Amino acid sequence: MLEKTTRINFLYDFYQALLTEKQRSYMEMYYLEDLSLGEISETYNVSRQAIYDNIRRTEQMLEGYEEKLNLYKKFQERQTLLEKATSLMNSEQYSELKTILDKISDIE
Amino acid sequence: MLEKTTRINFLYDFYQALLTEKQRSYMEMYYLEDLSLGEISETYNVSRQAIYDNIRRTEQMLEGYEEKLNLYKKFQERQTLLEKATSLMNSEQYSELKTILDKISDIE
Repeated sequence: MLEKTTRINFLYDFYQALLTEKQRSYMEMYYLEDLSLGEISETYNVSRQAIYDNIRRTEQMLEGYEEKLNLYKKFQERQTLLEKATSLMNSEQYSELKTILDKISDIE
Repeated sequence: MLEKTTRINFLYDFYQALLTEKQRSYMEMYYLEDLSLGEISETYNVSRQAIYDNIRRTEQMLEGYEEKLNLYKKFQERQTLLEKATSLMNSEQYSELKTILDKISDIE
């Protein structure tokens, strides 16, 4: 459950610009401010079920964008390589570092 | 003219997954295979004007995605930093290299 929430938060970071304002509001209240569906439904005066459906559809859209663009996946790959690069630098293994920098450069 | 074409080619690389199959076909024939509007229009048996409008609309969509997601801009920033990192490494300026690696890591 926690892992899913973390994933959705990351996907939201990467793709929120492609969502509508209403989708962003519901997602921020539910995931960032940790409000319940009941509380959000009171604020907007729409049914709990409508909020629930909207959030589920938004999550599917985020997963759909990730399937097409892989921004979160590429971000993770880059971060892993950068950690490795930093560690090689700190241990003064400079020739391997060069290889890692080239690999980072290859990720779009 | 050449610069615009280069930009559209980059934007196409980053966002083609968000286009329809028809949009991709027209764009690839026009920009990658360098066919004329007349040649594309003969292949698909639709008017030259329809192809032209579709390609212009697709270009606007690509610019719209870039305005929202900035993938091309971030890619350029990363490449510039990576070139600098490689150059610092080759000239053995390792303490500055560390700063650059951190900067690359900060770009999503």
